Amino acid sequence: MRTFLECVPCFIRQAYDAVSFVTDDDEIREKVLREVLIESAKMDFHQSPPLMGQIIHRLIRQYTGNDDPYKDIKTRYNRYALNLYEKLRKQINESPDPLETAVRLAIAGNIIDYGVKRDLDIGSVYDAMDHALAAELDLDMLENMRAAIERSGEILYVGDNSGEIVFDRLLIELLPREKITFVVRGRPVLNDAVMEDARTAGITELVEVIDTGSDAPGMIIEDCSEECRARFERADMVIAKGQGNFETLYETDKDIFFLFKAKCHVIADHVGVEQGAIVICRNITPAE
Amino acid sequence: MRTFLECVPCFIRQAYDAVSFVTDDDEIREKVLREVLIESAKMDFHQSPPLMGQIIHRLIRQYTGNDDPYKDIKTRYNRYALNLYEKLRKQINESPDPLETAVRLAIAGNIIDYGVKRDLDIGSVYDAMDHALAAELDLDMLENMRAAIERSGEILYVGDNSGEIVFDRLLIELLPREKITFVVRGRPVLNDAVMEDARTAGITELVEVIDTGSDAPGMIIEDCSEECRARFERADMVIAKGQGNFETLYETDKDIFFLFKAKCHVIADHVGVEQGAIVICRNITPAE
Repeated sequence: MRTFLECVPCFIRQAYDAVSFVTDDDEIREKVLREVLIESAKMDFHQSPPLMGQIIHRLIRQYTGNDDPYKDIKTRYNRYALNLYEKLRKQINESPDPLETAVRLAIAGNIIDYGVKRDLDIGSVYDAMDHALAAELDLDMLENMRAAIERSGEILYVGDNSGEIVFDRLLIELLPREKITFVVRGRPVLNDAVMEDARTAGITELVEVIDTGSDAPGMIIEDCSEECRARFERADMVIAKGQGNFETLYETDKDIFFLFKAKCHVIADHVGVEQGAIVICRNITPAE
Repeated sequence: MRTFLECVPCFIRQAYDAVSFVTDDDEIREKVLREVLIESAKMDFHQSPPLMGQIIHRLIRQYTGNDDPYKDIKTRYNRYALNLYEKLRKQINESPDPLETAVRLAIAGNIIDYGVKRDLDIGSVYDAMDHALAAELDLDMLENMRAAIERSGEILYVGDNSGEIVFDRLLIELLPREKITFVVRGRPVLNDAVMEDARTAGITELVEVIDTGSDAPGMIIEDCSEECRARFERADMVIAKGQGNFETLYETDKDIFFLFKAKCHVIADHVGVEQGAIVICRNITPAE
């Protein structure tokens, strides 16, 4: 997805929020902010927004000298989500359609995002779960996804954030595990999940996990490792979580089901839903 | 007042909103936005925020070829405020302290600001009036202002926005007119009041009106005409309306009373009030 002009003020806001979250040092904040302004002024808006996210967080890591500024946040949300695990497992298993419930909860988990919102409290995760369990969801699309999963040989499941991936685990446990490869980011960026988080969440014990080889907060195919690109090419279908993966993968020629909360109104408008809606959508309509 | 880092995301948001308000042409929008990003990256943050406002609106006028893109809005709000004039005049005259009521309403009029808010409806002007008439106001400061007006020979009243200046007229009518000189912007910028608006609002018939000679949405002294600077120097006191005048004049060595609505939280924090509060404050504490 291209970058809309409206995304630009949001880049600058996010850069300010992110660098302020990571450091109190006004000199560093100012340096990062000025560089992000310059990079935004030069940006090719045919590129997708996560490219700027990648640049912003590289600058923050570079100027703070901190390779993983969101480490504590990631640990906290992994732990928090793991504490919910048993309860949610039970809730899913006892529901009339476990897959639907697991999909709804996996989308709810997408609220754990430090890119769009700077402040996130535990309460809002609960609110997101309540909302996701009751909100309108495209059930026809869910059936399409169910059928595609059954039909597919290799399935790539592209994760998004730490904490959120525990919700992904709950969904993966309902899928044919031998088909699934889970994908995490190649290096720390924002609170996005990396290999260590997949381990913490218990996903490495369930399915094969690979990483993108990239520090983009999305899946910029050209920036991925050769191995990751090959796996993407080979996959029969992809399940991609979150806005960053949607923005980077939406226009690729691959059968992808996107699961996310439409947190910004540019995305919401693009998909044709209200801001805050839970979304399951597909980037192509295969001739079946 | 210096520019805080937090103001920077707001510049970009305001630039996007302003250029989108003025034109639908994405090419122009993009050009303005990219230039504002570059200018913001270079900005000396010791300067006050209205400097960036000046740059943004120069760029918008330059790229759209429209010298006064807010003309219709200004006309609309002048007309709207003039329609309220008789009712408010009566309300002020019948109130226990007409000066206090007029000050409160003059601050309420400061809601008519296209710099901070892109969308403004008539209803929000009514809400602002209701709020201003009931909200907490520093009444000791009001007494200080009353005394300073009495004691002063020459008084400069620096206006802010179109529409709002009708509310200023209601206050000026209670002041010793022979002491007052009203100041408008030298050239169109945003919906700020220029000489024509002062005429429309009936202020030119009441008191002498001069302009700043500048197109800054505030009063950047170094950017003002020689005449305006001389009048500023000579004045015994200044009454300055709105955030832009506060930001540009707060640190000058002059006895100034500021009347405004604290529309952004950076200003509110700076003054020590809640965002949205009505403010009367003074930049110096003269030895009396």
